[in-house]
Amino acid sequence: MSKKDVKNLKIAYIGGGSRGWAWKLMSDLASEKELCGEVYLYDIDHEAAKNNEIIGNKFADCPDTQSKWSYKAVGSLQEALTGTDFIVISILPGTFDEMESDVHTPEKYGIYQSVGDTVGPGGIIRALRTIPMYVEIAEAIKKYSPDAWVINYTNPMTLCVQTLYSVFPEIKAFGCCHEVFGTQKVLAEALKEEYGIEADRSEIKVNVLGINHFTWVNKASYKNIDLWPAIIKMANKRLQEGNTGSVDDPMACKELVKFDLLTRYGVLGAAGDRHLAEFCPNTWYLKDPKTVEEYGFALTTVAERRKWLKDKLDRSAKMINGEEEIKIDNSGEEGVRQMKAILGLEEFVTNVNLPNRGQIPNLPLGNVVETNAYFKKDSVQPVMAGNLPTTIAPMIAQHTYNQQLVLKAGLEKDLDLAFAAFVRDPLCGTLTLKDARELFNTMIKNTKKYLDGYKID
Amino acid sequence: MSKKDVKNLKIAYIGGGSRGWAWKLMSDLASEKELCGEVYLYDIDHEAAKNNEIIGNKFADCPDTQSKWSYKAVGSLQEALTGTDFIVISILPGTFDEMESDVHTPEKYGIYQSVGDTVGPGGIIRALRTIPMYVEIAEAIKKYSPDAWVINYTNPMTLCVQTLYSVFPEIKAFGCCHEVFGTQKVLAEALKEEYGIEADRSEIKVNVLGINHFTWVNKASYKNIDLWPAIIKMANKRLQEGNTGSVDDPMACKELVKFDLLTRYGVLGAAGDRHLAEFCPNTWYLKDPKTVEEYGFALTTVAERRKWLKDKLDRSAKMINGEEEIKIDNSGEEGVRQMKAILGLEEFVTNVNLPNRGQIPNLPLGNVVETNAYFKKDSVQPVMAGNLPTTIAPMIAQHTYNQQLVLKAGLEKDLDLAFAAFVRDPLCGTLTLKDARELFNTMIKNTKKYLDGYKID
Amino acid sequence: MSKKDVKNLKIAYIGGGSRGWAWKLMSDLASEKELCGEVYLYDIDHEAAKNNEIIGNKFADCPDTQSKWSYKAVGSLQEALTGTDFIVISILPGTFDEMESDVHTPEKYGIYQSVGDTVGPGGIIRALRTIPMYVEIAEAIKKYSPDAWVINYTNPMTLCVQTLYSVFPEIKAFGCCHEVFGTQKVLAEALKEEYGIEADRSEIKVNVLGINHFTWVNKASYKNIDLWPAIIKMANKRLQEGNTGSVDDPMACKELVKFDLLTRYGVLGAAGDRHLAEFCPNTWYLKDPKTVEEYGFALTTVAERRKWLKDKLDRSAKMINGEEEIKIDNSGEEGVRQMKAILGLEEFVTNVNLPNRGQIPNLPLGNVVETNAYFKKDSVQPVMAGNLPTTIAPMIAQHTYNQQLVLKAGLEKDLDLAFAAFVRDPLCGTLTLKDARELFNTMIKNTKKYLDGYKID
Amino acid sequence: MSKKDVKNLKIAYIGGGSRGWAWKLMSDLASEKELCGEVYLYDIDHEAAKNNEIIGNKFADCPDTQSKWSYKAVGSLQEALTGTDFIVISILPGTFDEMESDVHTPEKYGIYQSVGDTVGPGGIIRALRTIPMYVEIAEAIKKYSPDAWVINYTNPMTLCVQTLYSVFPEIKAFGCCHEVFGTQKVLAEALKEEYGIEADRSEIKVNVLGINHFTWVNKASYKNIDLWPAIIKMANKRLQEGNTGSVDDPMACKELVKFDLLTRYGVLGAAGDRHLAEFCPNTWYLKDPKTVEEYGFALTTVAERRKWLKDKLDRSAKMINGEEEIKIDNSGEEGVRQMKAILGLEEFVTNVNLPNRGQIPNLPLGNVVETNAYFKKDSVQPVMAGNLPTTIAPMIAQHTYNQQLVLKAGLEKDLDLAFAAFVRDPLCGTLTLKDARELFNTMIKNTKKYLDGYKID
Repeated sequence: MSKKDVKNLKIAYIGGGSRGWAWKLMSDLASEKELCGEVYLYDIDHEAAKNNEIIGNKFADCPDTQSKWSYKAVGSLQEALTGTDFIVISILPGTFDEMESDVHTPEKYGIYQSVGDTVGPGGIIRALRTIPMYVEIAEAIKKYSPDAWVINYTNPMTLCVQTLYSVFPEIKAFGCCHEVFGTQKVLAEALKEEYGIEADRSEIKVNVLGINHFTWVNKASYKNIDLWPAIIKMANKRLQEGNTGSVDDPMACKELVKFDLLTRYGVLGAAGDRHLAEFCPNTWYLKDPKTVEEYGFALTTVAERRKWLKDKLDRSAKMINGEEEIKIDNSGEEGVRQMKAILGLEEFVTNVNLPNRGQIPNLPLGNVVETNAYFKKDSVQPVMAGNLPTTIAPMIAQHTYNQQLVLKAGLEKDLDLAFAAFVRDPLCGTLTLKDARELFNTMIKNTKKYLDGYKID
Repeated sequence: MSKKDVKNLKIAYIGGGSRGWAWKLMSDLASEKELCGEVYLYDIDHEAAKNNEIIGNKFADCPDTQSKWSYKAVGSLQEALTGTDFIVISILPGTFDEMESDVHTPEKYGIYQSVGDTVGPGGIIRALRTIPMYVEIAEAIKKYSPDAWVINYTNPMTLCVQTLYSVFPEIKAFGCCHEVFGTQKVLAEALKEEYGIEADRSEIKVNVLGINHFTWVNKASYKNIDLWPAIIKMANKRLQEGNTGSVDDPMACKELVKFDLLTRYGVLGAAGDRHLAEFCPNTWYLKDPKTVEEYGFALTTVAERRKWLKDKLDRSAKMINGEEEIKIDNSGEEGVRQMKAILGLEEFVTNVNLPNRGQIPNLPLGNVVETNAYFKKDSVQPVMAGNLPTTIAPMIAQHTYNQQLVLKAGLEKDLDLAFAAFVRDPLCGTLTLKDARELFNTMIKNTKKYLDGYKID
Repeated sequence: MSKKDVKNLKIAYIGGGSRGWAWKLMSDLASEKELCGEVYLYDIDHEAAKNNEIIGNKFADCPDTQSKWSYKAVGSLQEALTGTDFIVISILPGTFDEMESDVHTPEKYGIYQSVGDTVGPGGIIRALRTIPMYVEIAEAIKKYSPDAWVINYTNPMTLCVQTLYSVFPEIKAFGCCHEVFGTQKVLAEALKEEYGIEADRSEIKVNVLGINHFTWVNKASYKNIDLWPAIIKMANKRLQEGNTGSVDDPMACKELVKFDLLTRYGVLGAAGDRHLAEFCPNTWYLKDPKTVEEYGFALTTVAERRKWLKDKLDRSAKMINGEEEIKIDNSGEEGVRQMKAILGLEEFVTNVNLPNRGQIPNLPLGNVVETNAYFKKDSVQPVMAGNLPTTIAPMIAQHTYNQQLVLKAGLEKDLDLAFAAFVRDPLCGTLTLKDARELFNTMIKNTKKYLDGYKID
Repeated sequence: MSKKDVKNLKIAYIGGGSRGWAWKLMSDLASEKELCGEVYLYDIDHEAAKNNEIIGNKFADCPDTQSKWSYKAVGSLQEALTGTDFIVISILPGTFDEMESDVHTPEKYGIYQSVGDTVGPGGIIRALRTIPMYVEIAEAIKKYSPDAWVINYTNPMTLCVQTLYSVFPEIKAFGCCHEVFGTQKVLAEALKEEYGIEADRSEIKVNVLGINHFTWVNKASYKNIDLWPAIIKMANKRLQEGNTGSVDDPMACKELVKFDLLTRYGVLGAAGDRHLAEFCPNTWYLKDPKTVEEYGFALTTVAERRKWLKDKLDRSAKMINGEEEIKIDNSGEEGVRQMKAILGLEEFVTNVNLPNRGQIPNLPLGNVVETNAYFKKDSVQPVMAGNLPTTIAPMIAQHTYNQQLVLKAGLEKDLDLAFAAFVRDPLCGTLTLKDARELFNTMIKNTKKYLDGYKID
């Protein structure tokens, strides 16, 4: 049928037991009055999906709810995917035990990671677990719902999207990340400081290029104002001030990593400092906790993540038993807006992760990159972002080529290839080959449970 | 200064004596309340520019005028270009005498042209006149206003834009053509016929790919409605009915060329039938006046153009002496909206002509193509249109490669190269080499006055 | 094993009943002293393969034989291919009855073809028969001998090689054609005329670019002599003389097509005039038999081919019963030399047909093109030929893009796509759409027996 | 004239006072009987050129001399270049004082370099001196001898060639380096160990890909023998033995860096270990002198270079005053053979440095890469080398993108850009930003004399 019934949609949520993204999606769907339908929740932790089924269905009773959505936890990918319009993927590859190793084992070798889920030793090991999962997901999509649109939120973003396209090149998938929004907010601050104008981040227009979490902005404006002079001014000022965050407010980020890179490379990092720092040599911003502190960002520990999860589980229980009221909040995410645009109900331009078809001419074709794309009915088309500035191209190239090597390692389940990539990551740049090997082996051992099919000695 | 003063703009109009595009621009500027400034009119027919200065300045007194614009005829490119923000180019390369030859001389050899300004014998000869003029313009822009944005309206569009970029690769130029709008209107009609919904052409979303006047749409929608089934249905119906236009209403175009191509090639031509027909072998739609009539389109004669011009000159005189009232009409053109977007006051996606940077991966890089582009502050970025469908790629490729040859002929002022291209045009496909040579020589002789520097025997 | 035993090779010959190429190969193998082995002959005409088995084995007794080869006719592709080192493909797609229609049916519509097996109506219809056969062959190679090297001799060369790579992208296949050798001979003649030096064609060094049978040379030399001035001089002289061939010597080709194109396009056609003419509009060299005669080439009739075949069959019988002596002649072909190089026994550069990997940057990647390649052990690497000269690029582009459309038609067995390509071929440029359709339908009907799976009304 | 007079050639030698490459060239020219002519020696050290004029002219009297060459020291680029057929460039950018700083200043920060002229801190600083010199040379070639063939021997090779093409894109230049020959010798050794066959390095056929001094071989053979198993076996054996070189024979290189990389990355480094090591993180092979020793290679000091130079100066004096006899030795270099091939007297395939035109599809177009190329009359065409193996692509990409940044720094004389590149080099991977800045500033100060036009605080 050529007229799509937007009141009767089906969305499949892989990782549907999630307590973060899933709840945000529920809230955003409830507040979107033009769409209705059902959401199928699939999770290897079926219990968690069942809980989300209950929570999701409670949104129908919220006073602010604009539309009717029903939620259903299902037991198989086949059930979730068959006949679906959209597929959302947001999974945790492994558990916090594996993440504990990803993030903290390297500390014994003097390698600190602020997130540990994208590149660096942690990101690479995480990718080795994730790629085979995404192979399975891509094969299921090819089989059960080849025409559905797929939105990925899982990290490592680039490699998740790359795996989907490797297995099923015709897939209609893209990866979404809100990190660029944060940089738009920084630009909005600069606008306010310089011109006294308050603007929403979405009003700040940027040209986006790079790879996820190491994305860059080389042009920024608000209406007829070019924001480049303002952001340069702000950068210089903040760098001069240095970190002034207090113990009480460790999160008062001064964007010092971003601004140091801006003044040295002439381009504005479009991700949080915690992410940007991980793509650089570990002697720059992540040398040790003191350096991290000087640059005013933080090392997110897995202990903190465990605590957050516990809070979420508590809230989950309370929402289920009615102790906590279900509320609709604007999540600030764009997933639902993207779905609307793909359905034809609006059109807009935003940043996504897609294979390079020429949007960044000086990076290899096929490698997943992050740029703006134009969303309209049944169509997500990259906007030509232009060449990466010569200054940052080497740093990005190093990672995008290394990601292809990690991909190959994951697809072929080959730890020799994985080590070849591992040892080349700039966060490992201070390790001898011997120490690198030792660290790698330890990390592999710690994540062994999720490396089925890899040959581990 | 980083905040652009949009109330104090300068626009240079090359071909500023024009009675068509110039008046439309005056009207559109007058109705745009956010912009103000001055327009410098330059024309080799200085008298015509002077007349337009008078007419333009009268817009200020229109009751509906929203903004203040002053017009000034100037005597040199330098004066027009220095310090300008935007440059509009809309010239007639040569006079109607030359066009008379372009369009009608080939008829003696059985070659009919419905327009004669883009490809075919007429388009190629016109290009030989035009390219040296654009070389001069491009050099002046490089010298006097390298940072200005340039909007071209002159035909042959592709070769005009291609010449600008050949001479000055950093130029910020693009070519605008309203032909795609006409196809959006056809799609809007299909929407109405099938669903009873009335929509403005701008609400019809299309993916655009090809070269100017031989542009194609491979995807079309209105909100959540895919318009492909409707347009196919309409095409079949119209083709069955055949041409039903009467002598009284020769312009009741049935789009039969467009629909014949659609049913055979599976893609929708996004230009008027008069243009589409000229890119095909001359045995298809332009075989003879009878065939043209059967397909329900018309051969535009230069006699008609002379008559139109006379009418315009009369109106010009009357507007100047006050006999005709100056009125603001929406021209339906997008030039002013594009300027607004480039100034940062809005953002939108529309179709333009730009060198291929990968927006159509299966055409050579650098060749000027027509696709959608994303307009925002100081930025016109092509949207990745995807590969040309295999079915139409051969027809487009033949012309885009031939255009490069015409470009070379025009840049090097080499008639041997020009003939090499001429004889390969599909409209010349029925000529023997001897006849082709004879026709070419005659046409060159007829346009000699504008071929300074070419070696003509 | 890393040391290849070159005295124990296996060659599979698909089309092994052939009386032309097969006998040449037998002779060339017998005279090559460094190689020995067995040749498996597979042919759908098993009787023909059996006859060639007998003839092939007789070469062992020739006094000049340098090496021992045994021949064996086999009944299946599987048997022929399993364990083979090289695969030679040289088949006749259909019979001379089908070829009769390919070549002569269009004459009723005023379309003359000098060969009829590459492009034009005959070439396209032949391709529709051939592509499905090559799909089958490619699938068998993928299954039974994925590592073998494949040499194709069948026409339409480009589409045969393109089909192999479409079905099995990792195939180690290339296409060989001796037409370039003929142009080297013309250059050798020019060398002799200008400098009095006699040289073998292989001593004439050329840069080759284009597509098979419409291949071009833009640089030619003999030792330290640049042959361009000499060939231009020769061209002008021959064109001035015109055709002087007599009825008695119709084959005394003056290369007038080649030289006419050279003086107009500045590049030297590297195929026989009979081939070159078929890629041009049919009003140029193939307008009618008189024009063909004036240009000094000939229309090869299928009647002549039938006569040749009869002679070959007679010779075959005589060779089998011993009436004709088996003799070793140098065929002038390079197949065996290429095998030697791939085995590592020599290295050299010659022209072959391969997918474009950048050897011709201004043609689309992936399309099969003809350029020089460097042969060495286990490796056939294209040499970067550079851009097609602007002058001939449009003519080549038209065909290479149209070939992709024919490929799609053949792979999808879709006659609508086939007609879309058919009607765009420059040899059909004088047909109305109605006549083109009628001709196409007739030709399809005549070849129906070999169009299994196509939907024919 | 179309017949080149090879007995009357003119060669310009920039850096013609050289005591290494110049003498080798003299010897090779003297032993080549098919060529004769004159060599113009240009050097900023005119005295050195004068001395070489004397030495060069003495070759005429050698008993083994096969051809007559006259040498002439000239005082300007114009004089050297005008009318020349070939240009050889082999200069020392700066003096050993600057090189002393390049190589040894970083040691104070724990950064050891085995050569210091390609990448790493030394290579980058050297490039900053060299690029402006090459800009001047390229401009002179464009002006005085745009059609001459240019052979570069200077390091940093990649950036020298890249600069030539940046300034004068039509230049016919390529870069020659004998490092690949060394790896062919290693392969010849493996051939001998495994098969007992002795072969010259030129008989070992290799596929070459990468960037100069970080070039790789992914395929190697001798006649019909695939050398891959043999080289792997040899690598494992040598790695097991470890370094066994004695103090007396420090140069008994075991190729341990090469073999360690081969076993980890699956590709064979085609440069000496001293070069390969410098492209890797400094924690791998250059961590400290002890690690260097363990891997069996050496840190070439500038003191040694000074000593070598002194020896050469002594020999120069003796050759001039007749104390040392002039002797013809085969240098093992290919320059003269390349000239012969370009003159049309032979054809062959060897490795050179050229801008990427697609010979390595997964590296950016335009970047100078090293692959095989096919030499014939007036033509040096890259052979399609194929994609860089995924395993080594990240290491090469990091450098090739960084080289573009150094190029930009050198062309724009911008030390901020230079530092941006400097700090990203993997040899600097253990430096903090602060130390890197300090080291950079010191090194810049030390080389200031050759940084005219750079803004240095």
